[in-house]
Amino acid sequence: MTGAEKERYTVTPWEVRGDIDYDELVERFGTSRVDDELKTRLEKLAGDLHFMLRRNIFYSHRDMNWLLDEYEKGNKFALYTGRGPSGHTHVGHLMPWIFARWLQEKLGVELYFQLTDDEKYLFNFDLEMEDTHSYALENALDIIALGFDPEKTHIFVDTDYIHTLYPLALKVAKRVNFSTVKAVFGFDNSTNVGSIFYTAMQSAPCFLPSEREGRMVPVLIPCGIDQDAHFRVTRDVANTIGYHKPALLYNKLAPSLDGSGKMSASVPKTTIFTTDTPGDVDSKVAEAFTGGCMSAKEQREKGGNPHICAVQNYRFFLFEEDDSVVESIAQRCRSGELLCGECKNLLKDSIKSFLKEHQARREDARNKLDMFLLKD
Amino acid sequence: MTGAEKERYTVTPWEVRGDIDYDELVERFGTSRVDDELKTRLEKLAGDLHFMLRRNIFYSHRDMNWLLDEYEKGNKFALYTGRGPSGHTHVGHLMPWIFARWLQEKLGVELYFQLTDDEKYLFNFDLEMEDTHSYALENALDIIALGFDPEKTHIFVDTDYIHTLYPLALKVAKRVNFSTVKAVFGFDNSTNVGSIFYTAMQSAPCFLPSEREGRMVPVLIPCGIDQDAHFRVTRDVANTIGYHKPALLYNKLAPSLDGSGKMSASVPKTTIFTTDTPGDVDSKVAEAFTGGCMSAKEQREKGGNPHICAVQNYRFFLFEEDDSVVESIAQRCRSGELLCGECKNLLKDSIKSFLKEHQARREDARNKLDMFLLKD
Repeated sequence: MTGAEKERYTVTPWEVRGDIDYDELVERFGTSRVDDELKTRLEKLAGDLHFMLRRNIFYSHRDMNWLLDEYEKGNKFALYTGRGPSGHTHVGHLMPWIFARWLQEKLGVELYFQLTDDEKYLFNFDLEMEDTHSYALENALDIIALGFDPEKTHIFVDTDYIHTLYPLALKVAKRVNFSTVKAVFGFDNSTNVGSIFYTAMQSAPCFLPSEREGRMVPVLIPCGIDQDAHFRVTRDVANTIGYHKPALLYNKLAPSLDGSGKMSASVPKTTIFTTDTPGDVDSKVAEAFTGGCMSAKEQREKGGNPHICAVQNYRFFLFEEDDSVVESIAQRCRSGELLCGECKNLLKDSIKSFLKEHQARREDARNKLDMFLLKD
Repeated sequence: MTGAEKERYTVTPWEVRGDIDYDELVERFGTSRVDDELKTRLEKLAGDLHFMLRRNIFYSHRDMNWLLDEYEKGNKFALYTGRGPSGHTHVGHLMPWIFARWLQEKLGVELYFQLTDDEKYLFNFDLEMEDTHSYALENALDIIALGFDPEKTHIFVDTDYIHTLYPLALKVAKRVNFSTVKAVFGFDNSTNVGSIFYTAMQSAPCFLPSEREGRMVPVLIPCGIDQDAHFRVTRDVANTIGYHKPALLYNKLAPSLDGSGKMSASVPKTTIFTTDTPGDVDSKVAEAFTGGCMSAKEQREKGGNPHICAVQNYRFFLFEEDDSVVESIAQRCRSGELLCGECKNLLKDSIKSFLKEHQARREDARNKLDMFLLKD
């Protein structure tokens, strides 16, 4: 990354900062765009098109056409995604999981879900292993709450499944040197040796389906594009160690309620967590950045700007699947008919209704954990 | 390490080269010498003094006096040593194990023995994990064959015990950065990320006795001085993560049959393996470098030089516990009375008799493995 690019924005697995240019990111990382042809192909196979594909939220990929070729030949792929358990889940994290849930339902595929308690311990000085391990189990409840099929869904916490993961990680680690992780992740001499090794642990589950099934299983990873660095490394070594390269489908990162950057657990005020109360939702959305004017009078005259509005973005990314509703709200905003207060109330209701159901399923999931967890 | 030092000799956990100056090494590493006072103290506690202490083969240490203070207060220590399973065990490897066996018998202490199959896979491009794992189990037979108490001896292979070791390794890895491993091990940008992480795995067993017993257990590591780099790293972080620093007792490295450097598995011709046949022993010792003269006539007149003789060194380091026998052979050599052929025959007999018994116990150990192995 050049200095100039770094100034404008930064996208690494551990830091997302600035005003991300998603088009430029495709060039920078060398990924492919999800084009109409690929969408049509996915729609045919799935029977419909998920709104996150329709809206180009999942907008970039690696090797999706190869993956679908294999699928059409009868070589079913497995899904792999994950979460770094540094705290409670926020709704931005749910995006690739909701999408994976849709893929599982439509294509009948298995999901492997990694909870990287080791990563979050290594990269966060203030977190102890007990913290990241207990957050991992809390985060697992959110995954289960989304309705994954227990027969086809395998959740594992790194330190609980290390006996299986470690030999796979070693195969990767043997073939990745410090030059590579320095260039790819921006590590330097002060980076701890656990963090340096860690990318091998995130690679390991790419090869897990093949090891468990005893055949060469293609793997698709739906995840935020900030994770691309890891999987560039994985893809570089995959063939050498006898596996397929994983395919990837990347989503844009859900924006913050303050209208900029990425939703971030470290700024709780501008982020909706799955554990938030209705009161939390009310006060967070009330404070959200909008495209409204200084006064109601001015806005009735000039209209608002839904394009830059965090409230509308939340709706677009997560809380309104119906394109016509999203568009009609935008139009009523632009015309000055819908003021920010009322618009915020609509979003509050959507979020609270989602969370009410999610939290009930989440509590219910506590009794189901054992159906999903892989352990040594 | 300066360029000049590097030219004369190199001692790292992965490379021992040149003519080692053991006195200078104590200065270079900043360890302490085993002095008469410490020997007397050990003799009092153990009831006698092992010949490896008497002969200054175990010649350097860290924190032995602290360890013995704790022991005298009733705070029993645990022993920890290990082996990198890159091939069969050679007799040089046995030195710290024989010494550990003596300590266990005399002081009633537990032994933890690590077989680092991950290390040897990561550091040797040509070895597969199946290779290092199967050598690990072969090497375990040699440990058991030495007569350790199964009630007090715990052998583990890293990849089989990783569930327990990994969280301990993470604690270390979080606190060691690339600068440190670069300086301590001579790593550079081309070092693979597994090797960079590995020192944390060698540190982990230092804290295992405390975890298993639920109290602060002092740990003593008897091992070759080439391993000091790892334990300097361990000792730097131990207190920070809530454990005692391990104490160390270092042996000089058994010399090669060619008369120089360290016995090395990569030069089988000049190394006696525990799996060697009597024929192997005969031909290897026959080829050994001695301090003899060009002809029998010349040697009878001038005498030989036992000081530089590999045959006498083998005897001194491993195959003759009786100092008076070692000295009498040296005297007969210097006087010209004992010629190399006869002297080699004496050593051949000692080695063959040792191996005969060892190999029988080694085969017997195959049925006892489960009594010793710790697994996840």
